[in-house]
Amino acid sequence: MNADRIPDIIIGRLPIYLRALQRMADRGLVTTSSQELGEHVGISAAQIRKDISQFGEFGKQGTGYAISFLIEKLREILKVNRIWDVALIGAGDVGHALARYQGFANRGFRIVQVFDSDRSKVGQQLGDFTVEDVAHLDERIRAAGVKIAMLTVPATAAQEVADSLVRGGIRAILNYAPISLNVPKSVHVQYIDPATHLQRMTFYL
Amino acid sequence: MNADRIPDIIIGRLPIYLRALQRMADRGLVTTSSQELGEHVGISAAQIRKDISQFGEFGKQGTGYAISFLIEKLREILKVNRIWDVALIGAGDVGHALARYQGFANRGFRIVQVFDSDRSKVGQQLGDFTVEDVAHLDERIRAAGVKIAMLTVPATAAQEVADSLVRGGIRAILNYAPISLNVPKSVHVQYIDPATHLQRMTFYL
Repeated sequence: MNADRIPDIIIGRLPIYLRALQRMADRGLVTTSSQELGEHVGISAAQIRKDISQFGEFGKQGTGYAISFLIEKLREILKVNRIWDVALIGAGDVGHALARYQGFANRGFRIVQVFDSDRSKVGQQLGDFTVEDVAHLDERIRAAGVKIAMLTVPATAAQEVADSLVRGGIRAILNYAPISLNVPKSVHVQYIDPATHLQRMTFYL
Repeated sequence: MNADRIPDIIIGRLPIYLRALQRMADRGLVTTSSQELGEHVGISAAQIRKDISQFGEFGKQGTGYAISFLIEKLREILKVNRIWDVALIGAGDVGHALARYQGFANRGFRIVQVFDSDRSKVGQQLGDFTVEDVAHLDERIRAAGVKIAMLTVPATAAQEVADSLVRGGIRAILNYAPISLNVPKSVHVQYIDPATHLQRMTFYL
């Protein structure tokens, strides 16, 4: 498998398959079919078979997929068969929600550092974390070897913080600030912005 | 323009162009080019020109785009040249963050109702809203004519709430619960799940 040759849109569907498979496993199911998985995720059985076959022969004609085996393979492919340390920048409302979110650990992530620029927040507790001063962001994440960050600062501060993250060696940013970030091509960015997601749907109403 | 003929991927980029243009307007800029807009959003100038030309001739060769005119046109196309009422279901951490978020109003949305199933939350204030009992969800949203909902309930409750939203006449759901929803084809769903977004990036690390 050559990562460069797999279309990004396929990679984007794998975490959705993985999430549905993990829910099936939680419910005690052992095997599934592309048909059944497709009903759970709203994607055609043919598309699922095609996507998964990019990475190898993980299912058997007639018997379908062994759920735990396919979970293991997808976690390997997505590199979440380990726990990634994540830095959280921004201790506001969204930062609070993320710091308290219980769903990361069993999906490959744990927050290890929380930063904010607000002097009244620095030194305070946010969930299990002591909020650190964003002024030391790049040294601190470099020292900790953190490669992934979640950015929940205001739009006006986001680019400056992103520059600091890049200097500190961050390779992937989940950006909640409602602004597109300029980062080197080697740094991956995913965007979460509820208004943008809503506007994508109003077109069809 | 026939909405059925515009690929969904193009529709998905329009809110990103709109957001960048609104930031340019806020900074006092009057005109822009597909080149400049492209640098802001990380999309090629050629792609931007192609996307926008699907809807009409909004720019001029040589002089580029008048920002306020293009904003107006994109808001018309995305149907956010009005304010949509939104119901929020789930008054937990994410619900709190959304209820307090100031960025919806100038992008076409306002929360008008907040629901939760937790008896200790029903009747309490969440920002400007009194939390209502989710038991009355379908009648209440139908009575209010609300067509858009944001779902921030636990995964185990999400499908049941989605069914209730559909019964109440909801046409678009922004789903924060980490589960794929089964809804009729006429109902649009967008997903926000930080772990899924992170897993999309770890593949490349």
